[in-house]
Amino acid sequence: MGLIVQKFGGSSVAGADRVKNVAARVVATRRAGHRVVVVVSAPGDMTDDLIRMARQISEQPPAREMDMLLATGEQVSIALLAMAIHAGGHEVISLTGGQARIRTERVHTRARIVDVDRRRIDRELASGRIVIVAGFQGITDEEEITTLGRGGSDTTAVALASALGADVCQIYTDVEGVFTADPRLVPAARKLREISYDEMLEMASSGALVLQTRAAELAKQYRVPLEVRSSFVDREGTMVTDRSIERRRVVTGVTHDRNVAKITATGVADRPGAAHTIFRAVAARHVNVNMIIQSVPRHERADISFTVAASDMRAAVDAVRAVAAEVGAEEVLADDGVAMVSAVGAGMISNPGVAARMFGALAAAGINIELIATSEIKVSCVIRASEVERAVQALHAEFELQHE
Amino acid sequence: MGLIVQKFGGSSVAGADRVKNVAARVVATRRAGHRVVVVVSAPGDMTDDLIRMARQISEQPPAREMDMLLATGEQVSIALLAMAIHAGGHEVISLTGGQARIRTERVHTRARIVDVDRRRIDRELASGRIVIVAGFQGITDEEEITTLGRGGSDTTAVALASALGADVCQIYTDVEGVFTADPRLVPAARKLREISYDEMLEMASSGALVLQTRAAELAKQYRVPLEVRSSFVDREGTMVTDRSIERRRVVTGVTHDRNVAKITATGVADRPGAAHTIFRAVAARHVNVNMIIQSVPRHERADISFTVAASDMRAAVDAVRAVAAEVGAEEVLADDGVAMVSAVGAGMISNPGVAARMFGALAAAGINIELIATSEIKVSCVIRASEVERAVQALHAEFELQHE
Repeated sequence: MGLIVQKFGGSSVAGADRVKNVAARVVATRRAGHRVVVVVSAPGDMTDDLIRMARQISEQPPAREMDMLLATGEQVSIALLAMAIHAGGHEVISLTGGQARIRTERVHTRARIVDVDRRRIDRELASGRIVIVAGFQGITDEEEITTLGRGGSDTTAVALASALGADVCQIYTDVEGVFTADPRLVPAARKLREISYDEMLEMASSGALVLQTRAAELAKQYRVPLEVRSSFVDREGTMVTDRSIERRRVVTGVTHDRNVAKITATGVADRPGAAHTIFRAVAARHVNVNMIIQSVPRHERADISFTVAASDMRAAVDAVRAVAAEVGAEEVLADDGVAMVSAVGAGMISNPGVAARMFGALAAAGINIELIATSEIKVSCVIRASEVERAVQALHAEFELQHE
Repeated sequence: MGLIVQKFGGSSVAGADRVKNVAARVVATRRAGHRVVVVVSAPGDMTDDLIRMARQISEQPPAREMDMLLATGEQVSIALLAMAIHAGGHEVISLTGGQARIRTERVHTRARIVDVDRRRIDRELASGRIVIVAGFQGITDEEEITTLGRGGSDTTAVALASALGADVCQIYTDVEGVFTADPRLVPAARKLREISYDEMLEMASSGALVLQTRAAELAKQYRVPLEVRSSFVDREGTMVTDRSIERRRVVTGVTHDRNVAKITATGVADRPGAAHTIFRAVAARHVNVNMIIQSVPRHERADISFTVAASDMRAAVDAVRAVAAEVGAEEVLADDGVAMVSAVGAGMISNPGVAARMFGALAAAGINIELIATSEIKVSCVIRASEVERAVQALHAEFELQHE
């Protein structure tokens, strides 16, 4: 008898049959004696359809009204799933983000959760109901509807699991867990039985699509036990926990990310505050920056390169161009023909040779490295997008990830 | 400088171009110096699509979850219309029924409005914004989402106009106003310049689809000045007011309703309480009854017939069958091959011969009358559905409605 939060993505609720499958799985968990809170995304392509409708009306729709529009997607899902569970013979109630009191700051289209008032959910659970909560959305103190940004349903699930003290937060997805690399690129890739929060966070932020980065961050921060598992196959997935990372292998997984663009400001004046000016301008447009690399200055000028999501390229370029004169930049270049490959592993901390092995393996495969960034447990390289597949295969083999 | 409530139906916001048209009309009203509150329905067939999705999941979805599902339709409309108005260069905000504080009783799928807390709308109007409110929906004291039943957006508009003390409530529809009969059946039908609340109410309840009956009722009760006019043609419509009804013609319009089913319980024991038992059972299933006719008893048994919306026929039959033994009924018969034609006119009160003229005109056209019901200003006859068109034409000619 525990409390389980289960999160199902949009592909899991695309169509009546899939909704019924999810309902069956939820009811089975409830019948096994657990209390269940379910978080669900908008069905299939509904969010994209709504965005398309908005674009037909306006090039730049107000963010508040986009949230008003997009929040309907999850509201449709929770209602349909509640109907399916009810038809399956179990007491159930659906709650919008507002009704579940998921309180956010007032930043439309990418709000952060401030807190969750658990009383309503507790009351519904206490009366024996399965509780379905709309992912991706929240409400401000002024009763304004907000959304959490793409992949926000993962964040909703983790935030609820934390607020409710759930025994586990299960993220149901269309893969069976976290793999050593994308199995579509590397047939020998293995499903990992467990992985640490830090590794999950680094993998999520470097292209592993099984879990949203902010959700991984939140899970780490509040020590929420996570399981990533398949919506379609009833099999154990990958546990994400803070268990000891000793006796771990040096590299746990290889990730890649094709949704990358590289921006370079050339000849920036080498004086205090130049970088600050640039990245303040970028941040003001709500663009997340991934890597930042500044070249060694020559003749008191340096090149500053950084990467962003490909969809943010235009906004980032505009931001840098707006301050180019102020920071003395000569040119602002953008390139979305790049991708990022990363090796992630908690064991790297005590194994300093990983980066060198990585560069060696890429060089042996004839792959040129354009940018490098490292963290304690990750090494990332920006390369040509066309070479991603060979790069991932080379690194998976180099670190012998096909073996347990 | 006044306050105008404008209500646009689903066909007015089906597709980006129509949304932009509505936006242009709203902005023009605002630019003419009026404060504007707009009420809007779900786009086009969205409500029907959502109902279809629900039926794929469950034969009998819980009413609360139907409301959760259906309320998304209007939320999509308000967001898109707000985007279009914003793109048109005017300050605007959309509000769900809950945000607009349209408080209802907790009866899902057909809630009644209890009151409207106007403070949020006032605040938005005071800051110069056009306010878009989702029709058809409200919220209970427990923050539960409710809907008002089909056509509920009209009711929302009238309730808001009343709460805000609006100068006029304009109902935009796909016809140009209230006609002496349906122009598709009677080419000579005329648009009425004005009509009394009572006449509007009787016409709405007997098949004129321009305005929902409950909205007409509410408008009458709170003396809300109404105008029914076209979404597509910018021309004066029909004013519905409580102006003097003297010097009016005897019959103002002829309506028809094909969405009718007739239920008959035969041989009901002629004792006190039998009718009460039957109609209490019907009301318990939330079925609205229109006409009720009880035959003259013979051998202490009577037939009781009544009409309901065709979609409620099954529920009504089930209700009567459940109490058939208790009231001693011999048979419960249902017939959805019927329709209703009505003659409506405030002048009938002082002109007793209208019913007789009506029966005479129908007889001359060879049309048999199955049931008759009258009010002070309306005579309705149930006839075969196949004879509706001829009946309406005969009555329109009989009362010379083609002439002003």
